[in-house]
Amino acid sequence: MASGNPYTLKWGIMATGGIAETFCKDLLCSPAVRGADDVRHEIVAVASSSSSKRAAEFLQKINGAFDAKTYGSYPELVVDPNVDIIYVATPHSHHFQNTMLALEAGKHVLCEKAFTVTAAQARKLVETAKAKKLFLMEAVWTRYFPLSIKVRELITSGEIGTVFRTIGDLSINSNAEEGSGLSFADSHRMVNPDLAGGATLDLGVYPLTWVFQTLYHLQPEQDKEAPTVIASSNKYTTGADENTAIICSFPGHSSIGIASTTMRADTDPENVVPAVRIQGSKGEIQVFAPAYRPTKYRVVKKNGEAQTFDVPQPADPARNSWGHGMFWEADECARCLRDGKLESATLPWKESIVIMETMEEALRQGGITYPELITTDVYDPKSPLNTGNQ
Amino acid sequence: MASGNPYTLKWGIMATGGIAETFCKDLLCSPAVRGADDVRHEIVAVASSSSSKRAAEFLQKINGAFDAKTYGSYPELVVDPNVDIIYVATPHSHHFQNTMLALEAGKHVLCEKAFTVTAAQARKLVETAKAKKLFLMEAVWTRYFPLSIKVRELITSGEIGTVFRTIGDLSINSNAEEGSGLSFADSHRMVNPDLAGGATLDLGVYPLTWVFQTLYHLQPEQDKEAPTVIASSNKYTTGADENTAIICSFPGHSSIGIASTTMRADTDPENVVPAVRIQGSKGEIQVFAPAYRPTKYRVVKKNGEAQTFDVPQPADPARNSWGHGMFWEADECARCLRDGKLESATLPWKESIVIMETMEEALRQGGITYPELITTDVYDPKSPLNTGNQ
Repeated sequence: MASGNPYTLKWGIMATGGIAETFCKDLLCSPAVRGADDVRHEIVAVASSSSSKRAAEFLQKINGAFDAKTYGSYPELVVDPNVDIIYVATPHSHHFQNTMLALEAGKHVLCEKAFTVTAAQARKLVETAKAKKLFLMEAVWTRYFPLSIKVRELITSGEIGTVFRTIGDLSINSNAEEGSGLSFADSHRMVNPDLAGGATLDLGVYPLTWVFQTLYHLQPEQDKEAPTVIASSNKYTTGADENTAIICSFPGHSSIGIASTTMRADTDPENVVPAVRIQGSKGEIQVFAPAYRPTKYRVVKKNGEAQTFDVPQPADPARNSWGHGMFWEADECARCLRDGKLESATLPWKESIVIMETMEEALRQGGITYPELITTDVYDPKSPLNTGNQ
Repeated sequence: MASGNPYTLKWGIMATGGIAETFCKDLLCSPAVRGADDVRHEIVAVASSSSSKRAAEFLQKINGAFDAKTYGSYPELVVDPNVDIIYVATPHSHHFQNTMLALEAGKHVLCEKAFTVTAAQARKLVETAKAKKLFLMEAVWTRYFPLSIKVRELITSGEIGTVFRTIGDLSINSNAEEGSGLSFADSHRMVNPDLAGGATLDLGVYPLTWVFQTLYHLQPEQDKEAPTVIASSNKYTTGADENTAIICSFPGHSSIGIASTTMRADTDPENVVPAVRIQGSKGEIQVFAPAYRPTKYRVVKKNGEAQTFDVPQPADPARNSWGHGMFWEADECARCLRDGKLESATLPWKESIVIMETMEEALRQGGITYPELITTDVYDPKSPLNTGNQ
């Protein structure tokens, strides 16, 4: 840990939905509870796209940062001179335009996953951040968990030998009680193509991040191999994918990743079958559900010897024992900025782009398409995705 | 159960390897132990391709049928007038030629899986059996287990609602202790392309049969839908596939099957994670490893309520408590022949062909090829696969 005063990162929060609430509650937890004495976080501004009243209500919900500025539009937020970094917590349909808005205003950005709707959008974001020398990171929070770091270390140390296969799933049974539909209204972001709805972009990104952090991320840089991607999807009545399976093949490394996601069944109704399995010549590592927020893993050696490890999220007693786990990625942002880094080594730009290429290819093979408004990679500050005038 | 004397089926056993031994030991179990009083089995002849001495030694190994004729060639076996049905227990490279040899001699056939090496071979076998009015069945023994029958009944009865996904795996960690190879000699049938080696044909056929019996077999006949198949394979140094993943998509039924197999890792070194999962709108059925011989399944309802059912194989106390489970398919053969049926309703010819088409397509996409001698669909009684002169 660094000596002296902790580095303080000042956050501007773009959007006031559920994920923003969870993230901000994590920002309000004491870093000391998770053993971080080198960084701290301040929420200095919050914006709703529709009204500053919503932003003010948001501060009540998160029960903190009561001095934060509250805005009723995103363009106002991104020009607030007190903000260091924007947390883009809008639906993924909006990520490209919203992140561009922030970058163009000279702000660093932590952007929720799925990073974008298309790979071209992801490339454009990265080019822009690079050109403007701004920090940019996709908010794949799970990667920054001590559990994930430990799993990657175990693989690197050879604990399970050569890894040949990773299988991951994130599925949530969302069937309606009656009829053959899902429980979501057609306008809901989970199934609405206008909001880039569908299983792959919303849920599939998690099993994919396990495939990537185990089969791609740990490859030596000099023979980094993007996967060959094959995929199949079943379409919901709205046109979004409801059930998708993706095979990522890394022939140069003799490994195969299988990522699956469906809104038609649960990963496991009992939550006892591992959600992720990393299988090697000397055994396997099992990561338990949910794939996005695991708190338990098990190392099973080839001979059947096994041990389970619990890695609970640290909870802050001063914050009603809150602690969801998004603070790890926030700390990463702070450390990168403190150290003058524009990207995180744990999820480099190149890797976010390869993952977007993978999802784009999977969706293409599944016959899933999204409207021009959310797939364009031409930045438009006046896009309704930025102005909220829809 | 039928009244009167049981129907007796007289078997001729082609090949004397491990699978033939297991099958014959099952034939020697008393049908009464498994509650079958309507059929019985006699082993009346056994053939090795190389010497009658081997066939005689085989009778010692199975410890029974000591009066059976012993032959040193397959052509001799298939013309034995006392034989009703030939059990083809050769490597799958040989199945097409060996089964043709038997059919051409007017014998009914139970042929081990994988049925053939190519779909065209499977079609040719079926055409031949049909033309000659002979019984022919692929020996997918697992399908005839009371456990499998129960699982299919549970699905049909709506116990887990609409089935949207089946995931199955059969993998065996066969890495060599030293180096990067597998533990098999390159000439071993598991990896030798001359013997149609590779994970898909040898192991993958089991997860596929779970995909098919749950997502295809139970479809109403009038809208039977063969899957769209995508697959990826890693090749072993011999050219056989060592690691394969297959997605079978049934878009007309909104379902996806994922079948995987590798020789580089175990399905689960502990044998506690289910090998097969059939996932529906109201819950899932988990079938425990190994996928080829499960003795336990678990029904997990959507709300997490779960129950495990043990279905051990009945063991014959008079046969040293033997009972592997291949007798169920033998009984099916006997009943079909007794009732004048040429194919089994549990695995109709059409379905064996669709499964072979699936594996052929998977292997094609994986870039796996086999030599002409074992892929030809031209019958040759003098083929070294029939004469043993290799």
